[in-house]
Amino acid sequence: MNLVTDPSEAHRGQLEPHGRVGLRFEPSGTAVRIPAGVTVFDAGSWNGIAIDSTCGGHGTCKKCRIRIADGASPATELDGQAYNEKELAVGWRLACRAQVQSDLVVEEPLLATRPKAATVGVGRQVILRPALQKRYLELDEPTLQDRRTDLERLRNAMEDLKLRVEVDLLRRLPRVLRESSFQVTAVVVDETLIAVEPGDTTESLHGLAFDLGTTTVVSTLLDLQTGTPVAVASKLNHQQPFGADVISRISAAVVDDEALTRLTALARQTLRELAEEVCAEADLDPREVYEVAVAGNVTMTQLALGIDPEPVGVAPFISATRAYPELPASELGLELHPRARATVFPSLGAYVGGDIVAGLLATGMTRDRRLRLFIDVGTNCEIALGSFEQIVCTAAPAGPAFEAAQIRCGMRAAFGAIESLRIRDDELELDVIGEGEPVGICGSGHVDVVAELVRVGLIDSSGRFAANDVAAKQFPRLASRLMTQESEERVFVLHESAATDHATDSVYLAQRDVRELQFGKASIATGWSLLAEELGIDAADIQQVLLAGSFSSFISPASAVRIGLVPPLPLPRIVAAGNVAGEGAKMALLSIQVRHAATAMLSEVDYVELSDRADFNDRFVEQLSFPELS
Amino acid sequence: MNLVTDPSEAHRGQLEPHGRVGLRFEPSGTAVRIPAGVTVFDAGSWNGIAIDSTCGGHGTCKKCRIRIADGASPATELDGQAYNEKELAVGWRLACRAQVQSDLVVEEPLLATRPKAATVGVGRQVILRPALQKRYLELDEPTLQDRRTDLERLRNAMEDLKLRVEVDLLRRLPRVLRESSFQVTAVVVDETLIAVEPGDTTESLHGLAFDLGTTTVVSTLLDLQTGTPVAVASKLNHQQPFGADVISRISAAVVDDEALTRLTALARQTLRELAEEVCAEADLDPREVYEVAVAGNVTMTQLALGIDPEPVGVAPFISATRAYPELPASELGLELHPRARATVFPSLGAYVGGDIVAGLLATGMTRDRRLRLFIDVGTNCEIALGSFEQIVCTAAPAGPAFEAAQIRCGMRAAFGAIESLRIRDDELELDVIGEGEPVGICGSGHVDVVAELVRVGLIDSSGRFAANDVAAKQFPRLASRLMTQESEERVFVLHESAATDHATDSVYLAQRDVRELQFGKASIATGWSLLAEELGIDAADIQQVLLAGSFSSFISPASAVRIGLVPPLPLPRIVAAGNVAGEGAKMALLSIQVRHAATAMLSEVDYVELSDRADFNDRFVEQLSFPELS
Repeated sequence: MNLVTDPSEAHRGQLEPHGRVGLRFEPSGTAVRIPAGVTVFDAGSWNGIAIDSTCGGHGTCKKCRIRIADGASPATELDGQAYNEKELAVGWRLACRAQVQSDLVVEEPLLATRPKAATVGVGRQVILRPALQKRYLELDEPTLQDRRTDLERLRNAMEDLKLRVEVDLLRRLPRVLRESSFQVTAVVVDETLIAVEPGDTTESLHGLAFDLGTTTVVSTLLDLQTGTPVAVASKLNHQQPFGADVISRISAAVVDDEALTRLTALARQTLRELAEEVCAEADLDPREVYEVAVAGNVTMTQLALGIDPEPVGVAPFISATRAYPELPASELGLELHPRARATVFPSLGAYVGGDIVAGLLATGMTRDRRLRLFIDVGTNCEIALGSFEQIVCTAAPAGPAFEAAQIRCGMRAAFGAIESLRIRDDELELDVIGEGEPVGICGSGHVDVVAELVRVGLIDSSGRFAANDVAAKQFPRLASRLMTQESEERVFVLHESAATDHATDSVYLAQRDVRELQFGKASIATGWSLLAEELGIDAADIQQVLLAGSFSSFISPASAVRIGLVPPLPLPRIVAAGNVAGEGAKMALLSIQVRHAATAMLSEVDYVELSDRADFNDRFVEQLSFPELS
Repeated sequence: MNLVTDPSEAHRGQLEPHGRVGLRFEPSGTAVRIPAGVTVFDAGSWNGIAIDSTCGGHGTCKKCRIRIADGASPATELDGQAYNEKELAVGWRLACRAQVQSDLVVEEPLLATRPKAATVGVGRQVILRPALQKRYLELDEPTLQDRRTDLERLRNAMEDLKLRVEVDLLRRLPRVLRESSFQVTAVVVDETLIAVEPGDTTESLHGLAFDLGTTTVVSTLLDLQTGTPVAVASKLNHQQPFGADVISRISAAVVDDEALTRLTALARQTLRELAEEVCAEADLDPREVYEVAVAGNVTMTQLALGIDPEPVGVAPFISATRAYPELPASELGLELHPRARATVFPSLGAYVGGDIVAGLLATGMTRDRRLRLFIDVGTNCEIALGSFEQIVCTAAPAGPAFEAAQIRCGMRAAFGAIESLRIRDDELELDVIGEGEPVGICGSGHVDVVAELVRVGLIDSSGRFAANDVAAKQFPRLASRLMTQESEERVFVLHESAATDHATDSVYLAQRDVRELQFGKASIATGWSLLAEELGIDAADIQQVLLAGSFSSFISPASAVRIGLVPPLPLPRIVAAGNVAGEGAKMALLSIQVRHAATAMLSEVDYVELSDRADFNDRFVEQLSFPELS
């Protein structure tokens, strides 16, 4: 995890930034400002003020007793059940029902419980309010005078929920109730009753978050009581043999009907194995996992669900749906609780998928005051720009520029990979992973090498290597590294193998590699510059650039600015956000409000289609150059 | 089917009997009175006034054009789409949106379609508004300018519905849309999109109704376009080997876990075979059946669904639930459309099940003005009493009195069964099924034989056979038929076998048989008399008695009165209602409103527990006697 936690941003993400009111807790004197309409219970949880509760703010336990010194809102029906008239008159209320509409002072409750909040995503504080909850119930046994059915008995004990029940649950319900003397734990996801377990099992409450990537799939087992990850595992997507990118996977499915079946089976196998791994690591029975959240791009999501992806791969690029129905986790091949539910992140466009929605959630893009630019760099690059007022997003086909596999001496970020370059006093300094002899260039190294050569002038702003005579004059010691290969392509040699029997093993940057990077960064820059136009803002006003995706964590902000991948901003504004898709998936398990925020993005975030624009090609050509040195 | 259709009752069942307004169609002059709030479209359909429509009154086809001469209600948004301002100003409206709130005159539309209503149940007229509907859609193909997802495209074409979609449907959606050039038929049950089929398949719209009885299961294949049954089949419930009644089936399941699995499998086998039979008879591909409705008693329902029935069989007699969730038909073992839905009738109590709710629907008990008594005679007898104002119901354990298998010379209603008896001028007249030599007494014959012997005095009001001397004096020719068997039990011989080699084959009524009938009818009479008390009414005020169940169709009203099974009412008020459970199941398929009425019964109908009542035994003993002859 590569999270940048900015403490000044904590709380801000979750809150609407306007319409705040003051709330002071006595006798401690703790004073906070919160959005109007938030309950005292939520405001307390949020700010680390301990308010007792066993139902998690559902109005059933009636333990969250507070007294509002002045200006209490009218008593609700539940307040009437918890207090007598005298108590109500002097301001006693249930904290989970008392909305703060104006400045208030409340008497701090005596009992203390752990403040239920967790920090996830990019400095986001999330109040723990999982869709998954357990309630321990001691039900009255039926008598001739009390002949409510088993289900009515359960429903009456959870009257704050409008429970949906599937017939499968009813099958063993009569027996479970009687074998446990009507002392059971109800397991609820959102408002679906998915299990009734004998005795009190409330101690174990787990969910699984998946970041379903084209290359790598990551699974995090979360303890939803505490909001903490219990185990994390990752592995390559088993679909790899069908191609490295989404287009090759779609093509495979199009050519051959069985390939679709196979791709779906492989995605599910990947998910299933990861679920087994994290459960084994945490020593948890997989049947105690009741919910999963999956964030992936549209193609990965459709393939995992078995939805024919063909129209995603050909113009006009249409996905089957933006929002997916909630479904049984078993439909994803997962072997967890037999009635475990799965929630799949919605997508904003065929190439702005659930991974990006998760990423926008994790970074608080739609809730933050600041004007921010979100870029997930990859073969398909997704870009979002805006603040809580308005967000626009788009997809830019960046091509293979950022895939080390596509550059001549490219390699993955492993021992021997050049990850950065510095040129000082006509000398080359290479940073090599593992510090041994360089054997190739990794993706972020490629960006860094080109950026440095641009900085010193060995590559000009049009992307061409300096002419030999110019180079010889300015870089007497480095000029010899500029060579012309037999194929007549010019290269810049970064490392010449010392061993004579490895004569061909020199590591170099080819002119073609530079061009690839130009195309990639031009596509991305065209994306964000057109989004800036769409919002009517100047790129210089952007207050933060978030580089998302595991690859982006390794790009140096200075290099990103120098090649024009991001706008020319002060470097502290450029931040690596890490695996935000996975963080978003975790947040969706931790907070049902966050989950609703994901759905809300479908209407809040505008998708801008770049290829429709008449000026796209002109803008793209403009962006091909590297920024002139200032 | 044994339906008594009372034309004067048509319409009345469906309607709330108060708050009516007048509606006249011009130029035909047809005038009707309808409940306020009904749409012109519904009122027209109902009364055989042809109003054009292809969407079935959903506001999408905009073909149901009418002009309201005076007093038109404000135009709705849909009216605004269908008409210009001038047209709206002179009263043009969509009939499906125009609610009649006061007396109105409307111009009869020119185009004519078949009035969509069907007569089912006991003289009930049901407007065809199935939960199952098909819509043929010609969708725009996606372009670079119109990149809505496949599902959005579908949803937008059916904006009047808030469609739920399961992930399974999405799997082939992209392909189906493209292979059919985006000309598809959407199949919707309630608000669940269950299929998208290539081309226009609206011609075929079928549902399956099941009357799931303990003994016999009946299946009716319905054409939901016309409301007519296409094929009917019945067969013995394959669970028979586990016992004839619900208690023996429950006991089997309790003793042995595998028996529950087996009973569930057998119920499903029965349903599946019946579905196959009716589809074969109608030459219909079972995959064209999209919905089923199942009405059964609580035990049969729970067993078919695989829900452990043990608590239903032991005090305090608790069922798992009153209302069942809608479920895939495949969960009932049915092999129909892979996403076909099943709706299972709710129950009012552990022994007043979905079959009775269906029966109350079919007889319009909760909608009828008249004070009516509903009795479903059987081992478990269900009784309901009331009118649209209030209904109470109860269950009375009648025992095996009405099961021919439990009387000495009992037999099922087949060739050779005595089905009725008349005594005139000291002569015995027997009605025998098939008119051959009598070989036994069927269930309804048992009632009839006892009633006739009571009428003439051969059985006294306490249920004893007349003393030999009394009989000899009054019935010189019949007295010899009163004999005492070797077991010292007195019997009345109905038929002496003529053949000497069949000496033991005489058909007789035993004293014990009379006692069984007394217990059974006393239980039932205690039931309705206590319900009458509950409502504060006199049994003499009951305007109609409905005898439900296939057996009751054969009971003579006169005999039912004579033994005290029903209150002493004028005979025309006593009506055999036939297989009302099956009728109710059909109605639930034909009309979503009727289906909602079934759910509404859970709050509208009060279940009265007889065994709680301190005076139950006293009342039972009072009812043991046969009514004194007046």
